[in-house]
Amino acid sequence: PAPEQLDRLHNADLIARLNEASLPEAEAILSRLDIERVAELFDQPELERAVELILAISRQRALAILTDMAEDRAADLLLLLRPEERARFLRELEPAVARAIGALLAFPPHTAGSMMATEFVVMPATATVAETLAHLRHVERTRETIYAIFVVEPKTRHLIRAVTLRQLIVAAPDDLIVKLEPRREPPVTVEPHMDREEVARLIRQHDLLALPVVDHRRQILGIVTIDDVIDAIMAEGDEDVHRFGGVEAFDDAKPYLKISFLTMIKKRAGWLCVLFLSEMLTASAMQHFADELQRAVVLTLFIPLIMSSGGNSGSQATSLLIRALALGQLRLRDWWRVVIREIPTGIVLGIVLAVLGMVRITVWQQTGIFDYGPHWQLVAVTIGAGLVGIVTFGSLAGSMLPFALKRLGFDPASASAPLVATLVDVTGLVIYFSIASLILKGTLL
Amino acid sequence: PAPEQLDRLHNADLIARLNEASLPEAEAILSRLDIERVAELFDQPELERAVELILAISRQRALAILTDMAEDRAADLLLLLRPEERARFLRELEPAVARAIGALLAFPPHTAGSMMATEFVVMPATATVAETLAHLRHVERTRETIYAIFVVEPKTRHLIRAVTLRQLIVAAPDDLIVKLEPRREPPVTVEPHMDREEVARLIRQHDLLALPVVDHRRQILGIVTIDDVIDAIMAEGDEDVHRFGGVEAFDDAKPYLKISFLTMIKKRAGWLCVLFLSEMLTASAMQHFADELQRAVVLTLFIPLIMSSGGNSGSQATSLLIRALALGQLRLRDWWRVVIREIPTGIVLGIVLAVLGMVRITVWQQTGIFDYGPHWQLVAVTIGAGLVGIVTFGSLAGSMLPFALKRLGFDPASASAPLVATLVDVTGLVIYFSIASLILKGTLL
Ligand SMILES: [Mg+2]
Ligand SMILES: [Mg+2]
Ligand SMILES: [Mg+2]
Ligand SMILES: [Mg+2]
Ligand SMILES: [Mg+2]
Ligand SMILES: [Mg+2]
Ligand SMILES: [Mg+2]
Ligand SMILES: [Mg+2]
Ligand SMILES: [Mg+2]
Ligand SMILES: [Mg+2]
Ligand SMILES: [Mg+2]
Ligand SMILES: [Mg+2]
Ligand SMILES: [Mg+2]
Repeated sequence: PAPEQLDRLHNADLIARLNEASLPEAEAILSRLDIERVAELFDQPELERAVELILAISRQRALAILTDMAEDRAADLLLLLRPEERARFLRELEPAVARAIGALLAFPPHTAGSMMATEFVVMPATATVAETLAHLRHVERTRETIYAIFVVEPKTRHLIRAVTLRQLIVAAPDDLIVKLEPRREPPVTVEPHMDREEVARLIRQHDLLALPVVDHRRQILGIVTIDDVIDAIMAEGDEDVHRFGGVEAFDDAKPYLKISFLTMIKKRAGWLCVLFLSEMLTASAMQHFADELQRAVVLTLFIPLIMSSGGNSGSQATSLLIRALALGQLRLRDWWRVVIREIPTGIVLGIVLAVLGMVRITVWQQTGIFDYGPHWQLVAVTIGAGLVGIVTFGSLAGSMLPFALKRLGFDPASASAPLVATLVDVTGLVIYFSIASLILKGTLL
Repeated sequence: PAPEQLDRLHNADLIARLNEASLPEAEAILSRLDIERVAELFDQPELERAVELILAISRQRALAILTDMAEDRAADLLLLLRPEERARFLRELEPAVARAIGALLAFPPHTAGSMMATEFVVMPATATVAETLAHLRHVERTRETIYAIFVVEPKTRHLIRAVTLRQLIVAAPDDLIVKLEPRREPPVTVEPHMDREEVARLIRQHDLLALPVVDHRRQILGIVTIDDVIDAIMAEGDEDVHRFGGVEAFDDAKPYLKISFLTMIKKRAGWLCVLFLSEMLTASAMQHFADELQRAVVLTLFIPLIMSSGGNSGSQATSLLIRALALGQLRLRDWWRVVIREIPTGIVLGIVLAVLGMVRITVWQQTGIFDYGPHWQLVAVTIGAGLVGIVTFGSLAGSMLPFALKRLGFDPASASAPLVATLVDVTGLVIYFSIASLILKGTLL
């Protein structure tokens, strides 16, 4: 396509084309665009193969693009390079730019510091609306956003207010900007090590377009803008669903089909092996009860049914608690409130399934579909009691797992459905056989 | 607290207080605030018990609040009322307001139409920058956002451009606003029935603050603003994790501890019962193989281990595909690309687990921890082959389930880990016993 045609496209549509094109084609398209536009494209996390593309472009052009990009996005891109490549870029960039990007690289990934833009609008408290508007016109080109203006104490440069362009537009030209925001509470800020999930929660609760990141003296280090927050929420969504499914989180948001076979195996094999080794305890438990099994094969018929019910109720409880903890609805110390909700919930759910299970055995027995032996009523009671016990245990274990992980310093969202199922499978077997020996002692066992 | 103290609080902090307070306390706090502020609080989905509060407030005040609220949020609130209550409010509101809210109520929940604001800034293509700024100052008070200005063809009122306040600020006063946006592509729009997930995807890809909703003639019906999109993404995140865990989605975003016991049971019992009834097929399968089980109890020892591995690899695959489909990375017709990735992935993962399993049997046998009988080598081979078969089947079934749901018109994210595990448990048993009879025929079986 001719350059004029490319100019007409929305960035998002141009990115879609680049992602579909072969690497040489994508290079050719980029070479026909001006640096500013290419930097806009590289600013978007949706652009795939950004590393390959920046390395394929001429060195001089690549440096110009990195300079023109938002610093936080340039830092993200450099992080994906090999350390030698990254160091080389930082050496060749203008010192001021390299220093700014380098400062962002120092913050751990997924923190406010790593995702902040350092190009923001700041005004002294003595400024008027007219002065601020004039300043905005002057600096607009180089700022991430001009919708949020941060007002600082002129001497100390402490942040004292955040005003919006909306407020400026309706104010009188001579008004002091510090008077525009009537509320007296200090503006909402975050410290640079705050996790992006917490940042997202704050920006959402306060309906902000940009959130200032401040140091311990309340001097502004940068701002986190809403577009980056949306990207972060989406990435967290990926992470949460993947981890809940038992897949290790991916570092970069590659689409499924572009993840290499080896990466795919690596991200899945680890957890599968851990789960498999833990689940081996079920074999040990079964070996322990091998005599009982030999005497009462009828008991084995229901093992998958009973155990899966515990895993299912556990994974329900885990999914509820993961979100409640992620959204800040619950704190660690609330664990006992959850216990006293999940135990009765588990008992009721267990009873519902127990009724279904016992009806099934009775119907199959009475209609002659299957013969569960002379003690079939006791077998039915064993299944019923086992279900109540295992479903209750499942709900309890599933709800406590995210708390336990949080307590140990992990993300509560690392709890996965397979992990809960494994936990419950092992314990569930022991519960089942214990109930069975209690009820069937002297008859079947 | 005194009204002046309340005035100083951020809305988010005031909402936190209201949520913690008893209902009469919350009412008392609200009575000390002016209508405008109360409407701002009701505009936030974070405010809990909004229904109880609006019904507790005096009728006249409640009507004023509903009028002052954003129409889309007022519609959301009315939707949570009983139909008689809702009709009564709509009768008592000013006709223009009632009509506007009523129009939003007509759109299905979770669509662009149901979440749009109908108070937006629109200008004819003949307007200059100065005229537009003057208009903004005039209407600011009543508009959801003034950062996005929609430019329409003066006669037909078709949307032709979207410009931003940022562009206005740096432009010359005499410029025509229609010339500010240089790109020629039509602005990004959505139709009112588009799902909120798609809306979120677009607003993210284009880094917009507001997305216009247009009818088939490209006349603007409303705008979806970014704060509502963030709320929607968060709600979708809840929904996705809950459903993946096998819990039915909740209609309103109540925190875990405030969900009533009955609602909790209802949202969990349904799926648990469906899964339980499906999983009963495992009992049928086991009954079918009862003879084999009686002859080779050693086979039963590994049933939970093998079956859970299939469920685990299945839930991994499902989590990957749910996100890939939700983010639009894959379309229905790409299902076969996934098949040719998941089969080799499943085989490799199965082999890894098979090696672990066979080593375990060998070690236990050789060290005398447990005796798997004279044919223990064949048993080990059966376990290994079973694992490869079941893990491969699990990966395949888990990855195809979201496609199947999408094909049937359901949200692919309705696929849950427990559902996959159940699917794989039933089929896995049949695979296991078939492999066992093949390998052990003539020896153990
Ligand atoms: Mg830059
Ligand atoms: Mg970053
Ligand atoms: Mg940024
Ligand atoms: Mg909000
Ligand atoms: Mg997370
Ligand atoms: Mg995280
Ligand atoms: Mg299972
Ligand atoms: Mg209104
Ligand atoms: Mg709505
Ligand atoms: Mg709204
Ligand atoms: Mg974006
Ligand atoms: Mg969804
Ligand atoms: Mg949805």
